[in-house]
Amino acid sequence: MKIGFVGLGIMGSRMAANLQKHGHALTIYNRTREKAAELLAHGAQWADSPAAATAQADLVFTMLAHPDAVREAALGPDGILSALRQTQLWVDCSTVNPSFSREMAAAAAARGLRFLEAPVTGSKGPAAAATLIFWVGGQTFDLEAARPALECMGSKIVHCGGPGAGTSLKMVMNQLLGTGMAAFAEALVLGEALGLSRQKLFEAILGSPAAAPFLTLKRERIEQGKYEPADFPLRWLQKDLHLVATSAHEAGVAMPLTNVAKEVYRLAIRDGYGEDDFSAIYDSLSRNCEVLSLAAASSGRPAQAVA
Amino acid sequence: MKIGFVGLGIMGSRMAANLQKHGHALTIYNRTREKAAELLAHGAQWADSPAAATAQADLVFTMLAHPDAVREAALGPDGILSALRQTQLWVDCSTVNPSFSREMAAAAAARGLRFLEAPVTGSKGPAAAATLIFWVGGQTFDLEAARPALECMGSKIVHCGGPGAGTSLKMVMNQLLGTGMAAFAEALVLGEALGLSRQKLFEAILGSPAAAPFLTLKRERIEQGKYEPADFPLRWLQKDLHLVATSAHEAGVAMPLTNVAKEVYRLAIRDGYGEDDFSAIYDSLSRNCEVLSLAAASSGRPAQAVA
Amino acid sequence: MKIGFVGLGIMGSRMAANLQKHGHALTIYNRTREKAAELLAHGAQWADSPAAATAQADLVFTMLAHPDAVREAALGPDGILSALRQTQLWVDCSTVNPSFSREMAAAAAARGLRFLEAPVTGSKGPAAAATLIFWVGGQTFDLEAARPALECMGSKIVHCGGPGAGTSLKMVMNQLLGTGMAAFAEALVLGEALGLSRQKLFEAILGSPAAAPFLTLKRERIEQGKYEPADFPLRWLQKDLHLVATSAHEAGVAMPLTNVAKEVYRLAIRDGYGEDDFSAIYDSLSRNCEVLSLAAASSGRPAQAVA
Amino acid sequence: MKIGFVGLGIMGSRMAANLQKHGHALTIYNRTREKAAELLAHGAQWADSPAAATAQADLVFTMLAHPDAVREAALGPDGILSALRQTQLWVDCSTVNPSFSREMAAAAAARGLRFLEAPVTGSKGPAAAATLIFWVGGQTFDLEAARPALECMGSKIVHCGGPGAGTSLKMVMNQLLGTGMAAFAEALVLGEALGLSRQKLFEAILGSPAAAPFLTLKRERIEQGKYEPADFPLRWLQKDLHLVATSAHEAGVAMPLTNVAKEVYRLAIRDGYGEDDFSAIYDSLSRNCEVLSLAAASSGRPAQAVA
Repeated sequence: MKIGFVGLGIMGSRMAANLQKHGHALTIYNRTREKAAELLAHGAQWADSPAAATAQADLVFTMLAHPDAVREAALGPDGILSALRQTQLWVDCSTVNPSFSREMAAAAAARGLRFLEAPVTGSKGPAAAATLIFWVGGQTFDLEAARPALECMGSKIVHCGGPGAGTSLKMVMNQLLGTGMAAFAEALVLGEALGLSRQKLFEAILGSPAAAPFLTLKRERIEQGKYEPADFPLRWLQKDLHLVATSAHEAGVAMPLTNVAKEVYRLAIRDGYGEDDFSAIYDSLSRNCEVLSLAAASSGRPAQAVA
Repeated sequence: MKIGFVGLGIMGSRMAANLQKHGHALTIYNRTREKAAELLAHGAQWADSPAAATAQADLVFTMLAHPDAVREAALGPDGILSALRQTQLWVDCSTVNPSFSREMAAAAAARGLRFLEAPVTGSKGPAAAATLIFWVGGQTFDLEAARPALECMGSKIVHCGGPGAGTSLKMVMNQLLGTGMAAFAEALVLGEALGLSRQKLFEAILGSPAAAPFLTLKRERIEQGKYEPADFPLRWLQKDLHLVATSAHEAGVAMPLTNVAKEVYRLAIRDGYGEDDFSAIYDSLSRNCEVLSLAAASSGRPAQAVA
Repeated sequence: MKIGFVGLGIMGSRMAANLQKHGHALTIYNRTREKAAELLAHGAQWADSPAAATAQADLVFTMLAHPDAVREAALGPDGILSALRQTQLWVDCSTVNPSFSREMAAAAAARGLRFLEAPVTGSKGPAAAATLIFWVGGQTFDLEAARPALECMGSKIVHCGGPGAGTSLKMVMNQLLGTGMAAFAEALVLGEALGLSRQKLFEAILGSPAAAPFLTLKRERIEQGKYEPADFPLRWLQKDLHLVATSAHEAGVAMPLTNVAKEVYRLAIRDGYGEDDFSAIYDSLSRNCEVLSLAAASSGRPAQAVA
Repeated sequence: MKIGFVGLGIMGSRMAANLQKHGHALTIYNRTREKAAELLAHGAQWADSPAAATAQADLVFTMLAHPDAVREAALGPDGILSALRQTQLWVDCSTVNPSFSREMAAAAAARGLRFLEAPVTGSKGPAAAATLIFWVGGQTFDLEAARPALECMGSKIVHCGGPGAGTSLKMVMNQLLGTGMAAFAEALVLGEALGLSRQKLFEAILGSPAAAPFLTLKRERIEQGKYEPADFPLRWLQKDLHLVATSAHEAGVAMPLTNVAKEVYRLAIRDGYGEDDFSAIYDSLSRNCEVLSLAAASSGRPAQAVA
């Protein structure tokens, strides 16, 4: 197939490379050209705009950082919808909120054009290994058209429903990651302040029914204090929690824990952790231990070692 | 062995029954005698006070609802410490906060007496099946004395460190349960309000790396709206989160998510969910859907079905 | 002057009436015509669209419920900008977020048209009494053009800066109202649960340096449990807190208290308080006192009367 | 009168000095003697223990940092209750939680002794100027016995009810201060990040109905970044919010905003603000502006200046 690909960041560049490996002919666009070098070296064609990446393609993918970037790439001058024809399909893999995705679906439909949402679960590693999960929202017909390409990039494709259903599931998954990581960080910090060793804590918690499996993947980072390069940068997760909060507002539901988690990650961005892996929320919460011990001591409550 | 057992609630009655099955001779005390009936029918002896349950025992266990109940059973008139001798050992399995447990250890030590903390993970089912996990804090010598009895009641015994270390680990585990359950409830409520079916959500979330395994055990309750009888009553979990928050304050660490979770469970107690299983936090957050839909609609943002 | 007025809700209808009283000739538009009856009876002209309300006017005001409504009235088919000419001025008094207001300023500027933001502090009473405060963002030249009309509706006009500055100040004011009201409600509920009478609490708190003056205006509502008709409906305040949270996200700052307050109001909407005055957050938090007392009692901690 | 005074910190030393000015004969005790120098120079007598400060006194006051310190001073070896007789009265002015104060009242009553709680509103300045407010809980008879001494130290004496009623009101007042200060800090940080000058914000907010009057007293500190010496150290306020949260737990009420405020102050302690005036919560939240701007910029959303 001829495939257009717009957005070549951590995720997009690896996803496009997998399409290329399977023999699909790529036309690619990115805001900065330098990230395209390797794909170009392997035969991809450069496009000067999203519209140019769309013109000759059967499918055009977008994998961008936030809704505003998608809106610009789709509806802006030289945007995808200005070039898309009825025989072509636009597939958006970006993490966006459901009402935004429905807005894109409606914008395409108003022009008689086809749109599919397919946000992913899985960060840098699964993007490279083609083991992403796609949460698809849209028409079955369009999903079947995209399936051969999606299967080059992921190991599981879930048709969640119509427009908005895929991004809704994505919202739910990232809410679980974000709240789960932050709650685990609080647990670790508490355990250590109460005198337990980090090793004892990892042994007790990880693998227990109380801990989500993904946390095991973060153990090494935390033990080594090594949060770069990120699998999933903290500031992106924080952005996703903002989209979750916005979706909750629009749907009329209350999410107090999620909103607080959102703010805790924001404080971490403020303190310079934005580009780190989101597991650095542990580092953010456990900082300043000495100040902390002094404060505890001066409150007449020393943090005592227990073993 | 001759074993005293104080506190015959949901947990204590099942733990004592397992000791009895292994042939240990029990002397038992509870605030209300009715809960002792079955144990008495199987040969246990009734004691009129914690002290009376202690007098002839090699080991005396306490399994009580909160620190104040433990303090009264141990230090009150006719309390355990008034009867305990140096050859005997008091083992507290109650969920209490570390500083309280250290206070009990110190109270025992000041009288030249022996104390071991051994709070458990596992609710009604594991208590009956003798598959509890014991988080032990105290001297190795004392743990070895208690081990034969602990092995009648649990499948795993973890020596965490000195006094306070076992309860510290218990705090960490219940923090993970409490925040994990509430965050999952928020995720479900959001997903449903965005138009996804509960079944689709369970399929996507449960078993994924983002979800703690214990959540799978709650699926049936949520699907059937059946939160009674509780495995772990919501108001006990809320009490535990208060102990976690108190421990965090004493240790000088910040736990914003945990403190908010504590309050969300408090609101659920206020609305009548206190005796339900703690998974009823989902029911609490998803109540009033019709009002919710109206509110959403009147804000110009209908919660749309997507599939 | 000839003035167009779009949006005749609780606020807009009263503001337009004050313009009418000062002899300005009104052309008015509202989604539902019924709310326009009194103004029409006093000589206003009905317009079938925002564009029609704009055509003959020197100034056109919008006073709408949320950013989406403003966007539609301004940029939609038959919207204000489709009819506005360079000699005319559009003044938006709606409560919107700064980035949205800047978007409107940019949309007008791109067409060579003039736009002024002038959100207000003050609810139903001050709208009727013409004692609103206007927080103005935009060009001095445009403010001077609007001033004669603004002075018919308010008692104070503050030029805060360029586009976005007025709405920024409005965000700040409503954040203070929303968090202040909710924190006061928590204080009252605590005091009463600890056994103090509501009267004793009001006497101690209101008028003290710790209480914002606006709280005194809510005393009667709380004492009488009378939250209807609303001065400022709770669901509008909740919407404003969402705009505050969105603005904070865009500006990169953390507001943990504000985000939690937002969710507490959301829970109140869910429970049916959306149309009540926002002081009903007290009623929402103090509900179910009997359940509460039972819960407290069953935790072994009766809420005792102290006097 | 002969008066014993235990606890000579920021508050206690100034309160005792005012008793001395009115001619009362003081016997004083403090953990460290150095703070007593000036009082001793003016004729006070040193006592080697709380009991010694009690022995010859008509009234004995305690003004200590937290409940544990009060418990030790009252019930410890050489504590007040070991020396108090029925003709004497113990008055506790410390900020403690109501259930603790009732525990002290009960401990005194069990020995046939008299106890009055009289926590204060007002920090260093009012303590020096004898303009404190006393929130009294206890018997009218005992209040009348203490009144002449209280009038030397404060300008207003409010009899709130029986034991616990005074501390209940004190809890409410400090909750309002703590949440009000933190919410105001969030408002300021937001306003500045949106491009408003701090001066414009102070002018708009302070003196408006939305702002508690005490905030005006903090303007100079914030403008000058001068948080030392503290009128009311941040770590004391945080401790008080913990007592509020504990009281809420015991009374069975939910206080989500208050619990989050408690954690926000805890984060500030961790970052070294514990000894600063509690208005330093602004400094804590507004730190790292440059990092913040970078983060905002990299999210594609620059924090724009508006004027």
